[in-house]
Amino acid sequence: MSRTPYPWRVVIPVEDAADPRLADYTRLRDVDLRKSLEGARGLFLAEGEKVIRRAVAAGHPVRSVLTTAKWLGHLADVIEGVTVYLVSDEVMEGVTGFQVHRGALASMERLTPPSVADVISGRALAGGTEPEGRGRTPRRIVVLEDLVDHGNVGAIFRCAAALGVDAVVLSPRCADPLYRRSVKVSMGAVFAVPYARMADWHDGLAEIRAEGFQLLALTPDRAAVPMDDVPLGDRVALMLGSEGDGLSSHWLHEADHPVRIPMSETAMDLGVDSLNVVAAAAIACHSLVR
Amino acid sequence: MSRTPYPWRVVIPVEDAADPRLADYTRLRDVDLRKSLEGARGLFLAEGEKVIRRAVAAGHPVRSVLTTAKWLGHLADVIEGVTVYLVSDEVMEGVTGFQVHRGALASMERLTPPSVADVISGRALAGGTEPEGRGRTPRRIVVLEDLVDHGNVGAIFRCAAALGVDAVVLSPRCADPLYRRSVKVSMGAVFAVPYARMADWHDGLAEIRAEGFQLLALTPDRAAVPMDDVPLGDRVALMLGSEGDGLSSHWLHEADHPVRIPMSETAMDLGVDSLNVVAAAAIACHSLVR
Repeated sequence: MSRTPYPWRVVIPVEDAADPRLADYTRLRDVDLRKSLEGARGLFLAEGEKVIRRAVAAGHPVRSVLTTAKWLGHLADVIEGVTVYLVSDEVMEGVTGFQVHRGALASMERLTPPSVADVISGRALAGGTEPEGRGRTPRRIVVLEDLVDHGNVGAIFRCAAALGVDAVVLSPRCADPLYRRSVKVSMGAVFAVPYARMADWHDGLAEIRAEGFQLLALTPDRAAVPMDDVPLGDRVALMLGSEGDGLSSHWLHEADHPVRIPMSETAMDLGVDSLNVVAAAAIACHSLVR
Repeated sequence: MSRTPYPWRVVIPVEDAADPRLADYTRLRDVDLRKSLEGARGLFLAEGEKVIRRAVAAGHPVRSVLTTAKWLGHLADVIEGVTVYLVSDEVMEGVTGFQVHRGALASMERLTPPSVADVISGRALAGGTEPEGRGRTPRRIVVLEDLVDHGNVGAIFRCAAALGVDAVVLSPRCADPLYRRSVKVSMGAVFAVPYARMADWHDGLAEIRAEGFQLLALTPDRAAVPMDDVPLGDRVALMLGSEGDGLSSHWLHEADHPVRIPMSETAMDLGVDSLNVVAAAAIACHSLVR
């Protein structure tokens, strides 16, 4: 009896980009199509070995993997027992619509999203598998209002994870952290930081305040207090808005303190006194965890 | 005698994307072509009204403007006396190879680049026109080693301008701050912060040290001192490397102090303890100007 060359349940060579078994991987650059397809099927895509490993470690079941012969061996341990579709570079590009980063995609199952209450109380973990996080009550959290750009959401998760922010809360209109680009830009940090989406924008902050969080609103307003000068309480929520519009007046009004990042006087005179949202978030998160 | 409807010297309608007068604007997505074309002609491109205004204010002569009827009126004051090529959206896309942001491009002349000595001594200004900067001796500068991504270079200029870093020095291999994407991502900050490119990588730092700058090297090394804890001297140069490779060992060795941004212990355990280069630069620049 010969030993099979691969440990997986099944490796299926596919030669036709239109093969219906590859439907999870269709037209990855078509944002509208992907949103409805991923929502309907309860899936998301992880791209590249490193991100796939983090998604698996966070407890997401693998629906299938799409890869090429070149990259098959790199995934041996992590996808044992998983259906793998093996394709040429041409079929890979034909299905997805672009050249896939490091030749491996995994279609993963979404988990039941936790509630805001579960996340800010520490009952929910990122994916449920990090023993370090279990039972630790979040003290420093970030609340994002209407950040619709997937890259920015991913980048802020990366900052939050690296700097030690305990959790992220999203307003209802924020971009999906599990969308392919968010996951990629986050370098898998969306699987390391617990997060939840508010059900209601208007009253969403009240629930956070009721848990004892001091609400800081980041704003370019020159009258606001420099973030580094604000005494931080036991539990602090830092609210961040989008780059163009900033936080809504309703959320600004709900905040305990407006805070700002000090800008150069010369930059203000020259009209170059703004940071992109990720740079601002990085500086503010660094101050939040001081 | 009727008054001409526009104040410009000449508005030339062009209907053929292959018209040689549009050669400055050819194939903007072809990085290699653009690098050699822009280098050979001593030009760069500014995209969108706001960025064009900043480039003009910084003293760059306008070679020509390429725009559509919709955007012509927005530029009336800034391009008086300039040759304007007026095209349809289709011709615009045909020449440039993509849909142009806010419908206006200007081909601008590069100025003679200042030397590192001129920039760090305060003799060179950004474009030469900001009275605020004139004669002020730089005390806080950023030195970039081999950042080859135009977007990252632009984003770091934006941070430097907003936070009040006085100047930027580039290693010989760094991406061009006047390349279209750098300019765009910087939101025009490349015209607000004086900068120079080193002639020599190996001995480039010696010249900066000789001017009295303390050299801080940002590194992920856990043994380095947190950036916020380093006492800053009168003149400080913050050295930043690329995201993947970081600073070279030669430059690290040349530094007075390795410094780091403190990372979360949990993130280190989970392997998500890295910031992207722009987030790291933002936090480090904020600390540099404290």
